[in-house]
Amino acid sequence: MAVTSQSFQEELPPKSDLSNWYVRVILRAELADYFEPVGGCMVIRPYGYTLWEHMQALLDARFKATGHSNAYFPLFVPESLLKKEAEHVEGFAPEVAWVTEAGNEPLAERLAIRPTSESIIGLMYSKWIQSWRDLPVLINLWNNVVRWEKRTRFFLRTTEFLWQEGHTAHRTEQDALDEVLRILDIYADFVENDLGIPVIKGYKSAAEKFAGAEKTYTIEALMPDGLALQSGTSHHLGQNFARAFNISFQDDDGQRKLVWTTSWGLSTRTIGALIMVHGDDSGLILPPHVAPIQLAILPVRDEPDIRDFVGQVEQALAGTVRLLTDWSDKRLGWKRSEWELRGVPLRLEVGSREVQEQRVDMVRRDDPGRTRYPVPLADIPHVVAETLETIQRDLLRRARAFLEANIRPAASYDEFKQIMETTRGFILAQWCGDPSCEAAIKAETGATIRCIPLSDLGNEPGQCVYDGRPSPRRVLFARAY
Amino acid sequence: MAVTSQSFQEELPPKSDLSNWYVRVILRAELADYFEPVGGCMVIRPYGYTLWEHMQALLDARFKATGHSNAYFPLFVPESLLKKEAEHVEGFAPEVAWVTEAGNEPLAERLAIRPTSESIIGLMYSKWIQSWRDLPVLINLWNNVVRWEKRTRFFLRTTEFLWQEGHTAHRTEQDALDEVLRILDIYADFVENDLGIPVIKGYKSAAEKFAGAEKTYTIEALMPDGLALQSGTSHHLGQNFARAFNISFQDDDGQRKLVWTTSWGLSTRTIGALIMVHGDDSGLILPPHVAPIQLAILPVRDEPDIRDFVGQVEQALAGTVRLLTDWSDKRLGWKRSEWELRGVPLRLEVGSREVQEQRVDMVRRDDPGRTRYPVPLADIPHVVAETLETIQRDLLRRARAFLEANIRPAASYDEFKQIMETTRGFILAQWCGDPSCEAAIKAETGATIRCIPLSDLGNEPGQCVYDGRPSPRRVLFARAY
Repeated sequence: MAVTSQSFQEELPPKSDLSNWYVRVILRAELADYFEPVGGCMVIRPYGYTLWEHMQALLDARFKATGHSNAYFPLFVPESLLKKEAEHVEGFAPEVAWVTEAGNEPLAERLAIRPTSESIIGLMYSKWIQSWRDLPVLINLWNNVVRWEKRTRFFLRTTEFLWQEGHTAHRTEQDALDEVLRILDIYADFVENDLGIPVIKGYKSAAEKFAGAEKTYTIEALMPDGLALQSGTSHHLGQNFARAFNISFQDDDGQRKLVWTTSWGLSTRTIGALIMVHGDDSGLILPPHVAPIQLAILPVRDEPDIRDFVGQVEQALAGTVRLLTDWSDKRLGWKRSEWELRGVPLRLEVGSREVQEQRVDMVRRDDPGRTRYPVPLADIPHVVAETLETIQRDLLRRARAFLEANIRPAASYDEFKQIMETTRGFILAQWCGDPSCEAAIKAETGATIRCIPLSDLGNEPGQCVYDGRPSPRRVLFARAY
Repeated sequence: MAVTSQSFQEELPPKSDLSNWYVRVILRAELADYFEPVGGCMVIRPYGYTLWEHMQALLDARFKATGHSNAYFPLFVPESLLKKEAEHVEGFAPEVAWVTEAGNEPLAERLAIRPTSESIIGLMYSKWIQSWRDLPVLINLWNNVVRWEKRTRFFLRTTEFLWQEGHTAHRTEQDALDEVLRILDIYADFVENDLGIPVIKGYKSAAEKFAGAEKTYTIEALMPDGLALQSGTSHHLGQNFARAFNISFQDDDGQRKLVWTTSWGLSTRTIGALIMVHGDDSGLILPPHVAPIQLAILPVRDEPDIRDFVGQVEQALAGTVRLLTDWSDKRLGWKRSEWELRGVPLRLEVGSREVQEQRVDMVRRDDPGRTRYPVPLADIPHVVAETLETIQRDLLRRARAFLEANIRPAASYDEFKQIMETTRGFILAQWCGDPSCEAAIKAETGATIRCIPLSDLGNEPGQCVYDGRPSPRRVLFARAY
């Protein structure tokens, strides 16, 4: 995982130049790389993939604790199968990659590379589900999907991406709704407490919902440039897919009934949010819960007394923290820059003086002043553990302060437009519910309804910011990635 | 994960009818299902996928302990990239699925769905590797690949399958060879000690090696019908891919040199081996190390005193074993059959009498006589833990006895043919090294050289079984899946 020398030749742009900073920090920290022969595809390098593995483990544990099992479904969706749910195919067909030849022969029917697996799931669930005793079915998939996007960006929008997609079937509508909200809470809990990114929970307007869903719930985060990022969605599919695929069961009253289904997904896109929300001019800042390396030990020189002392430090920490000791022959300043760029949340520096005094100097990555805390050998394990948790909380606290400072009510459409032209961020504005007002606002300002919040945020009636008609409550607008 | 009622309507065929038994046990135990719209694709259901998750965890820990990191590379290989290594493309092109349209437009160049990732790796490694300091590169991928096979069978041969593919680059040939054999040892250790399947380690003849490799190492297992199953391969790629993709580095002597690369893979195919090697007329027998459920608790009835006692048993075992208690209202005989079919290695039965005597009746799945061992409550944790390890060892011991009884020397070609027409199994026979003898034996008997053993097995000179010319040693023949 060594950063090759050439990757440090270029300066990192300041984070205020967000889109350049974003690309440069990803390449230089070796999170990912371009795959030039296929535009829009990316390679997730070991440092980026290890981050994803920690994210997967934390989410997967939550899914399993709530009764879900993982499974694997095929990559290919025959065109006729994809077409079974009309609204669904209409939403996804323009982005599909098609296999038309295989094994040296043309295929009788085109096969879509799955853009999502509802159709495949629909077919199989209709076979597996026969009785109310078979319900609920609670399955999650960790896989790759393909959506042929024109404009792509590392993690945020790539033609192939990794995600999890959950698919569940229930006996009653209430059971399905409970599941949809249970997952939304899991997503919010994971994104806030493990990724340190505060989110607003809500549901989408009809124009913004998932193709084929009755209702789409979402968690929305705010990036430093004032653009929103949809970070996870949970769909109440009603009986739309049950009807299209005839997923029915015999209930205990003897009646044949359609099931109620849900689907929900969170992808490698959230890695993009993580990078943008926490990073600074020196590079990444990774939240301790998911950081591939939580602690870097930087020996000033490779000398016997320092080796011996570092060995004691490593032994004291063994098994409690993901740590790396940088014994390379680079200068201390270079090592600091490297591990700061890579976002390692905490570092310990050890020179001859520290050895003499039987202590280390601890420095927090998220501390702009890089204060040095001397920590005696005996205290290292608990101080490191506590400091990592403090960093985790502080990252969320800072991001939450930014989010809260960037939710603005707009009393008039002029004010709305002015906010979108200056600070951006989230706008709370009244909306009458008419899709034509929503469409006009989008066309004129670029802002979309990110969600109708589930909390009390903006929950007071008024007049639509666009056409003045009565509005039941404010909704959340923003321009979005 | 309940077995639906209809799946028990059909009797399981006896295991002696191996290919029917194999398909039926997979469907009835809900390991997998057909995906009818795309012949050759399969769905891995939660019970089968959970098995795979345990296998992944055990292998992945071994890869990480030997310095490998995971990463993710794209699904698509442009045709021109796949063609860069001539022997490689010749081997894989006939089985490729091609994407020719995407985003509503024809593509300028066909994209192969990766059948394996050497070409993609070659391109990226040539970019990442510049100096001897960048070596070795030790990367593993867990992903899906597609090979358009005409004849498919659950797990053993499917058009899409899951696997891990390791790709490493080294400074010297010796480093690469060490890696190839290190991985072969990891595979053998995993397959023998976690899956309970004994294997023979060796290397392939030129005719049987991986397309593009210098030398392919393999572990070969034997199925109950006397057919061999290649269960993992580790390839020494020499400098073939380094040359084709110009993967070179500046060594510390200032010279520009080509790297030496390896690749190695183990797939969901080994699940097929696991099923065939251990199962019996009652269904699956899963090795405890990978069983989704290691212990089933079967209460005879749902009554308060039984509930209370089972609660105590569960508490005594909490966190030490993957257990399931079957509180369904089915009869005890039905529950026994269900969990036997699903291969749960150990079960505890609890009725009123057991509660009264504060004990359970323990039954091993792999015991043909189904002996009942009474175990007092206080002893349950250590008896269960020890018995699971005993089962794990006994499964390997039994499979090894079968393997050893089915390795036969063939002194003459007549004897060779007779073995292949009767018992089958492995044949140790002299081979002069000429590919034409190998090809003739294959055409006439269906047997291929599975490997040239690394051990002393058959390591004595003689005359080629086919044409009588001098032969340095016996090699291992079999018909194979």
